Amino acid sequence: MISARNQLDGTIRSVKLGTVMAEVVAQVGEFEIVSAITRASVESMNLRAGDRVKIVIKATEVMVAKD
Amino acid sequence: MISARNQLDGTIRSVKLGTVMAEVVAQVGEFEIVSAITRASVESMNLRAGDRVKIVIKATEVMVAKD
Amino acid sequence: MISARNQLDGTIRSVKLGTVMAEVVAQVGEFEIVSAITRASVESMNLRAGDRVKIVIKATEVMVAKD
Amino acid sequence: MISARNQLDGTIRSVKLGTVMAEVVAQVGEFEIVSAITRASVESMNLRAGDRVKIVIKATEVMVAKD
Amino acid sequence: MISARNQLDGTIRSVKLGTVMAEVVAQVGEFEIVSAITRASVESMNLRAGDRVKIVIKATEVMVAKD
Amino acid sequence: MISARNQLDGTIRSVKLGTVMAEVVAQVGEFEIVSAITRASVESMNLRAGDRVKIVIKATEVMVAKD
Repeated sequence: MISARNQLDGTIRSVKLGTVMAEVVAQVGEFEIVSAITRASVESMNLRAGDRVKIVIKATEVMVAKD
Repeated sequence: MISARNQLDGTIRSVKLGTVMAEVVAQVGEFEIVSAITRASVESMNLRAGDRVKIVIKATEVMVAKD
Repeated sequence: MISARNQLDGTIRSVKLGTVMAEVVAQVGEFEIVSAITRASVESMNLRAGDRVKIVIKATEVMVAKD
Repeated sequence: MISARNQLDGTIRSVKLGTVMAEVVAQVGEFEIVSAITRASVESMNLRAGDRVKIVIKATEVMVAKD
Repeated sequence: MISARNQLDGTIRSVKLGTVMAEVVAQVGEFEIVSAITRASVESMNLRAGDRVKIVIKATEVMVAKD
Repeated sequence: MISARNQLDGTIRSVKLGTVMAEVVAQVGEFEIVSAITRASVESMNLRAGDRVKIVIKATEVMVAKD
């Protein structure tokens, strides 16, 4: 159990690898969520399209916009 | 238009005010998203339960967990 | 209107593209501000040198140093 | 010398203390910058209005908005 | 398994509760690590002094300073 | 003196350079800490394996996990 308040079940749609960073796109309910993590994390977790994952976001990183 | 990749439509469920910070909980599709922003932001935007909002999260703040 | 408290008018000076990430340097008043965002954001917003932009920073990401 | 790319000279305008967090507002050139740091940092650094400070922001925390 | 690269075993030394946020101090090897999380996380995890925990930090949040 | 509460003495073990970002791994006591900073920071600070550094982390970026 981790203190990050936002933990959303999803499925990886795509993984793009750079030298240092990687972009992971996941389908989370009706939403597409984009994550930028290190390439080393992708490799150590062996993340790939189709994986069932949890998207995790600390509450202090979440902003609110209103028209 | 802002560079943050994740922008999710939702509705504020609750706002809790501290002296400096505030906690905003929003319903986003099937998910409940928790945001910790400054109290001054809540007041200047006049955020309250029932408001239609966008939840905004920079991709570099998003983590991925896998069993 | 977004909850991020810091929104500074500026002009993009340069954009450097990596595979996943991009570095955007903007002139903001007398200051040069460096931003690391995803390459996909740069492309979807068509960011390029000379663009008038707003630099946006959440208050919880700002530190203070004193001699 | 710290890796955070953005280091802006300013002057503290106000400090508001909560139990855990504190809000520090600084004048930085023509801009007002808001920072949310821990109350313990404010106390250990003895931050107060009028102090000459550096505002420090990691590049990965900076977003770009365009109309 | 979570993509955050830094996961350090430690023991909680103290928990201070504000209205919205909480400060958790942990002993991690020879180091004291300070974390600011929501009070709701502390309560839902029932965090208290003496608990064995993991301190988790995303690599993109880590800075490097050199004299 | 910077408001970031976590400042840990360490030694750089490795530096990997991408186009925009770089990964710096440091030995900090018994721990290995991974940092993702801009390549430009690595170059301007001339960071390299063997350098004595401080690892700096803002408290609001630190999470806590418990079994």
